[in-house]
Amino acid sequence: MRTLPQIVVEPVVRAALLEDLGRSGDVTTDACTPADATARVALVARQPGVVAGLDCARLAWQLLDPHVTVEVQRPDGSRVEPGTTIAVAQGSARALLTGERVGLNLMGHLSGVATQTASIADSIAHTRAVVVDTRKTTPGLRALEKYAVRCGGGRNHRFGLDDAVLLKDNHLAVAGGIRPAVQAVRREVGHMVKVEVEVDTLDQLQELLELGVDAVLLDNMAPDVLREAVRMVDGRMLTEASGGITPDSAPVIAESGVDMISVGWLTHSAPVLDIGLDHLG
Amino acid sequence: MRTLPQIVVEPVVRAALLEDLGRSGDVTTDACTPADATARVALVARQPGVVAGLDCARLAWQLLDPHVTVEVQRPDGSRVEPGTTIAVAQGSARALLTGERVGLNLMGHLSGVATQTASIADSIAHTRAVVVDTRKTTPGLRALEKYAVRCGGGRNHRFGLDDAVLLKDNHLAVAGGIRPAVQAVRREVGHMVKVEVEVDTLDQLQELLELGVDAVLLDNMAPDVLREAVRMVDGRMLTEASGGITPDSAPVIAESGVDMISVGWLTHSAPVLDIGLDHLG
Amino acid sequence: MRTLPQIVVEPVVRAALLEDLGRSGDVTTDACTPADATARVALVARQPGVVAGLDCARLAWQLLDPHVTVEVQRPDGSRVEPGTTIAVAQGSARALLTGERVGLNLMGHLSGVATQTASIADSIAHTRAVVVDTRKTTPGLRALEKYAVRCGGGRNHRFGLDDAVLLKDNHLAVAGGIRPAVQAVRREVGHMVKVEVEVDTLDQLQELLELGVDAVLLDNMAPDVLREAVRMVDGRMLTEASGGITPDSAPVIAESGVDMISVGWLTHSAPVLDIGLDHLG
Amino acid sequence: MRTLPQIVVEPVVRAALLEDLGRSGDVTTDACTPADATARVALVARQPGVVAGLDCARLAWQLLDPHVTVEVQRPDGSRVEPGTTIAVAQGSARALLTGERVGLNLMGHLSGVATQTASIADSIAHTRAVVVDTRKTTPGLRALEKYAVRCGGGRNHRFGLDDAVLLKDNHLAVAGGIRPAVQAVRREVGHMVKVEVEVDTLDQLQELLELGVDAVLLDNMAPDVLREAVRMVDGRMLTEASGGITPDSAPVIAESGVDMISVGWLTHSAPVLDIGLDHLG
Amino acid sequence: MRTLPQIVVEPVVRAALLEDLGRSGDVTTDACTPADATARVALVARQPGVVAGLDCARLAWQLLDPHVTVEVQRPDGSRVEPGTTIAVAQGSARALLTGERVGLNLMGHLSGVATQTASIADSIAHTRAVVVDTRKTTPGLRALEKYAVRCGGGRNHRFGLDDAVLLKDNHLAVAGGIRPAVQAVRREVGHMVKVEVEVDTLDQLQELLELGVDAVLLDNMAPDVLREAVRMVDGRMLTEASGGITPDSAPVIAESGVDMISVGWLTHSAPVLDIGLDHLG
Amino acid sequence: MRTLPQIVVEPVVRAALLEDLGRSGDVTTDACTPADATARVALVARQPGVVAGLDCARLAWQLLDPHVTVEVQRPDGSRVEPGTTIAVAQGSARALLTGERVGLNLMGHLSGVATQTASIADSIAHTRAVVVDTRKTTPGLRALEKYAVRCGGGRNHRFGLDDAVLLKDNHLAVAGGIRPAVQAVRREVGHMVKVEVEVDTLDQLQELLELGVDAVLLDNMAPDVLREAVRMVDGRMLTEASGGITPDSAPVIAESGVDMISVGWLTHSAPVLDIGLDHLG
Repeated sequence: MRTLPQIVVEPVVRAALLEDLGRSGDVTTDACTPADATARVALVARQPGVVAGLDCARLAWQLLDPHVTVEVQRPDGSRVEPGTTIAVAQGSARALLTGERVGLNLMGHLSGVATQTASIADSIAHTRAVVVDTRKTTPGLRALEKYAVRCGGGRNHRFGLDDAVLLKDNHLAVAGGIRPAVQAVRREVGHMVKVEVEVDTLDQLQELLELGVDAVLLDNMAPDVLREAVRMVDGRMLTEASGGITPDSAPVIAESGVDMISVGWLTHSAPVLDIGLDHLG
Repeated sequence: MRTLPQIVVEPVVRAALLEDLGRSGDVTTDACTPADATARVALVARQPGVVAGLDCARLAWQLLDPHVTVEVQRPDGSRVEPGTTIAVAQGSARALLTGERVGLNLMGHLSGVATQTASIADSIAHTRAVVVDTRKTTPGLRALEKYAVRCGGGRNHRFGLDDAVLLKDNHLAVAGGIRPAVQAVRREVGHMVKVEVEVDTLDQLQELLELGVDAVLLDNMAPDVLREAVRMVDGRMLTEASGGITPDSAPVIAESGVDMISVGWLTHSAPVLDIGLDHLG
Repeated sequence: MRTLPQIVVEPVVRAALLEDLGRSGDVTTDACTPADATARVALVARQPGVVAGLDCARLAWQLLDPHVTVEVQRPDGSRVEPGTTIAVAQGSARALLTGERVGLNLMGHLSGVATQTASIADSIAHTRAVVVDTRKTTPGLRALEKYAVRCGGGRNHRFGLDDAVLLKDNHLAVAGGIRPAVQAVRREVGHMVKVEVEVDTLDQLQELLELGVDAVLLDNMAPDVLREAVRMVDGRMLTEASGGITPDSAPVIAESGVDMISVGWLTHSAPVLDIGLDHLG
Repeated sequence: MRTLPQIVVEPVVRAALLEDLGRSGDVTTDACTPADATARVALVARQPGVVAGLDCARLAWQLLDPHVTVEVQRPDGSRVEPGTTIAVAQGSARALLTGERVGLNLMGHLSGVATQTASIADSIAHTRAVVVDTRKTTPGLRALEKYAVRCGGGRNHRFGLDDAVLLKDNHLAVAGGIRPAVQAVRREVGHMVKVEVEVDTLDQLQELLELGVDAVLLDNMAPDVLREAVRMVDGRMLTEASGGITPDSAPVIAESGVDMISVGWLTHSAPVLDIGLDHLG
Repeated sequence: MRTLPQIVVEPVVRAALLEDLGRSGDVTTDACTPADATARVALVARQPGVVAGLDCARLAWQLLDPHVTVEVQRPDGSRVEPGTTIAVAQGSARALLTGERVGLNLMGHLSGVATQTASIADSIAHTRAVVVDTRKTTPGLRALEKYAVRCGGGRNHRFGLDDAVLLKDNHLAVAGGIRPAVQAVRREVGHMVKVEVEVDTLDQLQELLELGVDAVLLDNMAPDVLREAVRMVDGRMLTEASGGITPDSAPVIAESGVDMISVGWLTHSAPVLDIGLDHLG
Repeated sequence: MRTLPQIVVEPVVRAALLEDLGRSGDVTTDACTPADATARVALVARQPGVVAGLDCARLAWQLLDPHVTVEVQRPDGSRVEPGTTIAVAQGSARALLTGERVGLNLMGHLSGVATQTASIADSIAHTRAVVVDTRKTTPGLRALEKYAVRCGGGRNHRFGLDDAVLLKDNHLAVAGGIRPAVQAVRREVGHMVKVEVEVDTLDQLQELLELGVDAVLLDNMAPDVLREAVRMVDGRMLTEASGGITPDSAPVIAESGVDMISVGWLTHSAPVLDIGLDHLG
C-alpha cells in the first residue's frame, strides 16, 4: 500500500504539537516529572477497527525527543479488536506524556476514517464496486485522510481542484450545457487530466456518452435507475454513484453494478476510533 | 458571545484553499466559467442544527475575490431547520464556485460540533451542569472547534497543555501521589493558572479536598458515586464528570449535581451538519 | 485561457520582494526619492515575443503600495514586437522603482518561457502535434512556468509526482517489467489518475498496447520509428515523443504523427524575454 | 571558495520537494518499488561544463531518507566532460527515484549558471576584468545562483537593494542630478555600504569623479568610449561595464581595461547543464 | 524548574541565524577559515548575574553544525561571577565563529532578564511577596523571557490575552463598572480561566471583594494604602501590587504584605548580562 | 530619513499579535466590550525621548481592524516631552484595547533605542564622530532596531554577517595574521562589500595601513591611543572606536577624532521609553 512521505506528514504533526504546547509547554508534566524519567507505554485499541496513522503518533513523540523508540505490532491497515496492542513506545516520560494527546488525536481520527471505510468496503465486497472518498475532508488533513481511506481498503477520488476535472450541475449551467462544458475543458486542461461529469438524469447520460469522457458521476439516482445507467454506459466510461450514501444504503447502491460509490461521510463524519495509551511502567 | 479574531481564522482558511487549489487552481471552473460572470448563492441548512463558522465561508470566498459580499441571515449560534437560508453570497461566479467546498467543509464541521454541543446542552438543561469540551480536537482546528462549542452553548475547558494544569493518573503515579504532585505544580506554575486533578475513587477525592485545588475531574464514576462526590466536595471546588459520556448518558450523569460534564465526542466525533449551496442565478 | 489564482501567485511575488529588499529595503531609492513623489512607467518589449506574467509585475508594485494602478494593453498570451507597450503603471515613485526588478525578473522569465513555447508551437502548427512541458521546471516556479507554457500555446503535462503516473525505465526495471509495473500502479492509484509508460523500443510498445494505459512516452526514437509507433498505436492511446527535442528538431518529430512532443527546454533553458521599463515622467 | 550554509540551502530544496510531491507523493514510485529496495546511482555529466549545486542533489535525497549517502567525485567548481561521473549516491530506491528530478532541476540550473560564467571568464582571462553577476536572478534562488557564479569563476555584485547603493538614471532624474543624489545617499546610508553610480556619458563621468564614490557603472558604452572612461578614472574608483553584454561581445568589452563586466544573462538566460542519472544497480 | 521544549525554542534561534546570515552567510568567516578547522571556546561571564538561555547558544551552534558539542558547567538558573566559565563548546571553527553573536545575543538578553529578576527577588526575600512578570515583553520572545524570569526566581503572570482575564480600568469603563464587567466575563470564559481585576482605590476594592474573583491588581497605591488593602482582602484573593515598581521601590512595596509585585521592567528594560566568548584554541 | 517598507514591518507586528492573542484571543476585551463600540485614544509620552515605531502601533491596530485611523502628531524621529501627544487613534474599541500592548511593546522598545541613540549623539555633537550600532540586536528585530537608531540620529553599521566584512581577532588568528586574512577576504568577496579590520594595538594598525581596507575598528583603546591611531590613519580609512563605550565615556572617546563610535548598548540594553495610552472617550 502506498504510504505518505514523512516530509509531508511531519509539518502536520509539528503544527499540532505547537498548537497544544502553546507558549510555555506542558506545565503539568514538566512540573511533576523528572527530566530523566523514562517510561514504556502501549497504544491499545478499545474498539474493533482498522489502524491508520501510526507515523503520526511516532512523530508526536520523536519530535519532542528523538530518542523515543516505537515498536509497531499492527501496522497501518491492520484490523484490531478491543485490547489489541498496536504499538509499544519507550523513552523519556516527559515526551511520552506530553505527546500523547496529539498522537492519539491524529491516530484516532485517521483510524476512524479507515474503520468506516473498511466497514463500507466489507458491505459491498460481493459487488464489483469500490468505495471512494471525496473532497469533503477536514481542512489541513486531506492527504492524511485520503491515506486513511486507502488503509481501510477504499480508493481515492481526486485530491483537489487541480488534478482532475469534475463538471457539476453549476458548471454545466454556467457553460450552457454538457457539450460546451466538456469542449471548454478539453481546450484548457492537459492530456494527463481525467474528466468526469455529473449527471442527474438518463437523458443527460445519453448526451454525455457521445462525448467520450473518462467517468460519470450518477448523482442521487435510485438503484434501478443506476442499474439502467450502468447498462447504457456498458463499460465505455467509469461509473460513480454518489449522493447521501450511508453505510446502510451502500450495498444496494453497489449492487446496481456501478464501478464506484463515493461517500463524503468517510472523511467528514467518521467517529474517532477509540485508542488508549496504557502505561506499562 | 466571544468571537474569534479574523487574524486567527484567516490563516486556517487560506491554508485550506491552498490545499484544495493545489498547483494550478480550479481547472474545472476556470475552463468553463467566464472571468466576469457573477452569481448569487445561498447557504441553506439541510438538517436541523446550530450554525457555526460563517466567517470561514465568507473568507473562503473573499480570499479568492475581495469583492464577494455575504449577507448573513442566521449568525453563528442560531438554530436552523431544513431549508433555512443561513446566508446569501454574491459576486464572481468563479470565486463562488471555487471556494464553495472549503467554505462548506469548515462550516459543516464547525456547525456539526455546535449542533452536537447544543443537543447535549439541551438534554441537561434541567440540571445545574454545563457541557464542556476537551483537548480531543482536530489538529489545526482547536481554536475554531472550541469556538463552535461556545456557539452550541457549551463552555471551554483548557485550550492546551500550557494554560491550565490537569494532573491525571499517570502524573500522580510519576510524582508519587496526589499531594507531592500538587505541591510540585504549585512550586512551578504561575498564580493565574488553575489546577485540576483527576481522581478515580472517593478516597482520592478525600485526600484532594485537603489540598485546595480549583477543580476535580471525577473519572468514569457511576451516577451514585458522582452524587456522593458532589456531596463531599460541597462547593469547595468545581466538579467535572468525565469518561465516555455520550448524548444518551449525559442527563443521568448531569443529574448527579456536578458542575460540568466534559465530552470529547463533541469535537472528535461530531458528524458534519449538512449545509448546501443553492445557486440563485 | 486558464489563469492562475492570485492566492497562488502572491506568495511567490512577496517572497521575491523580501529576497530583494533584504533587511533594510531599497536604500538607494529611499535615500533619493521623496516619499510623496509619483511616477508613470511603461513596460515595453525590447524583443519580439509572447507576454506572460503581468500579474507578477502588478503585484510587485501593489504589494509595496496598494495605490499603484496598472493599465494592461497587451494581456498575457499577446504577441509583441520591439517597442510594443505592454502595460502602463502609475503611482508612488518609490514603489515603482523598488518593485521594478522583481516584476521584470518574473515577467521576463515567464515571457521567455511563453515565447519559446510559441516558437515551437508555430513550427509544428502544420502537424497534429501539440507541444507540452515537463517537470524540468525551476524550483518554486512550477505553477507559474506551466501557466507561461499555456500562454505560449503549449499544453501542460502532469504538475508533479502525485497527479499522474509516468512509469520510466527505472520503474519498469525495479518492478520487473511493463506488465507488473502497470498492474502495481492500477492496484494503488485512484481512478482519476492517468497512467503513461515510457518505452524505448517497438517491442516494448507492442507489450504495452495490450495493457490499455492512457498514454505512451516514446523515448528518443528516430522519426521513422516514431511513425511506425504511431501506426501501431492507431489511436488507442495518446502518443508523446520525448528526448532532447530542440526547436530545430521539433517539426520533423511532430511530422511523425504523434499527439504531443514534450520539451524540457521550454522551462529549464528558455532565455529571458527582454522587457524594459520606460519612465514616462 | 565560499560555500553556502546548509541552513540557507535546505529550505529551498525542501520547498522544491514539496512542490513536486504535492498532496500524495510519488504515486508511480511508491506503487511499483518495494519500501526496502536499495539502489546505487551516478550523477553523470552529458555535456562539458562546470559543476555547481551538489548540496542540492544530496539534500533532495537525504530529506526523503537521511540514510542515503552521497560520495562526491567532482565537487562544485570542477570542470567536467561528457561522461564524467560527478557523484555516486546509494540508499533507498524510493528516495533516489523520488528525489531525482528535484536534485537534477536545481543542480542542472546552477551548473548551467556556473558553466556560462566560466565560459565568459575564460574568454576574458587575458584582460584584467572579472565577470560579475546582477540582480537579474530567478526569484527565490538568488543566493544559490550567486553561489553558482562564484563556482564558475565569477564575482558577485550586490545581493539586493539593501546591501549597496546603485544610483541609476531614474534615481538621478528624481534626485535632480548626480551630485544631489550622491549627497542624499551619503546622508542616509551606513559607512559599510558602498556606492556605485551609473553614467551614460563621459560628461557624467567627469562630474562623478569629483564626488569620490566607490564604483561607476558605465552603461552601454562602445569599446573606445569605455577605454577613454577607464583612462579618465585612472584607478580612482572601480569601473564596471554593463548593458547587453553577451559571450560574443565580452572579450572586446573587457579589453577596454574596465575592472568588471556585469552580465545579467549569466543568471536569467543560462541554459541548463545536462546532467543525467545513471542507475548502477 | 520548568524548562522550555526544544520544539518551541528552535524556531526562534533558527530565525535569528537566518536574520544574521542574510542571503550569503558569514562572508568573513567563510573567507578566512578552513572548512575543516576546529576550535574550542568558553562562554564566560564578565559580570555577576544569573544564567538563562544556554539552549539558545547551543542551538545557534548546532543548527550550523550538528557535530558541535556543548558541555554545560553552570546550567540555567546558576549564579555566576565575573570570570565564571558557564559552558565550553567544541567543534567546527566556522560554526563556532558564525553562531557566536546569535547565541550571545539571546543568552545575554535572557540572562539579563534573569539577573534583574533575581536582584528584585533577593531584595524582597524577607517578605512573603514574589516578583512576577507582565505582558510587557519583547515581541517574538515572550516564552523565552518568561522562562528567564523563572530562571531568576520570579513567577509568571499570564502569558497572553487568552489564558487569563485581567480587567483594567478601560474595560471597567466600557462595561459600566466592576460588577457588570465581572459578570460579563463569568458568562463568557471557561472554568479554567482565572479572573483578576485592577482597582485604583479601596472603594473599588470593597466592591470587588463581594464578587469573589481570583486576584486583584492594586494599581499604583502607596505602601500604606497597599497595607490597608491587604488587610481588607484578608486572604480571600491574591493581591498584586503594580505600577512603576523599580528595584529601589520593590522592598517597601513588598513589605505591605501583598502576595506579588509585578514589574514590567524585568522584560522591557533589563540590560544585557555581559557574557563573552573566550577562544581556548 | 529612510523608512522601513511596510512589507518588512508587517510580519513582525502580525507575529507579535498572534503571540499575544494565543489560541482564543483577548478574552477580557471580547467578554466586556460590545463589538460595535468605538473609542478614541492617544499615545502620550510619559518621559522625554525620541519617537520611533509609530508604524508598529498603527499596524497593531489595523491588522485587527482595518478601519482604525491613526493621526500622527509627532512622527518617528521627533523629540517629545512628558505629556506630549504622539498620535491619536480612533475606531473599534475592541481593536484599540486588544492591540494596545503589542503596539506599546514595539513602540516603547524602539523609542527607547532611539532615545538612547539621541542621548549619545547629543553628547558627541561637538566632535566629528557619529554614533553607530552593532549586531548586538534583539533576535527578530534587527531591521526595526537599526531603523530606530537612525530615528535617534545614529548611523547603521553592517546589518548582518553577509553585507560587509569585519575581521576580528579570532579571524586573524585562524587566518594566520592580518595580511593573509585580508588577502583571503579579497579573493572571496564581491567588489561592493566593504572590509573592516579590528586591531588592538598600534603595531597592528601600522600593518593594516599598508593593506588599504575601508575601515578599522580600534578595539578598547584608551583615548590617547585612539588619538595617535587617528593621526596615523590620517584619513586613509574610516576609524571606529569600539569596546564597552557607555553614555558616560562616549564624549571623551569621540574627542579622540575617530569617525565613529559603536555602542552595542543602544540595542541590547536601552530601557523602554515610557509611552502610555490615554483613553479620550
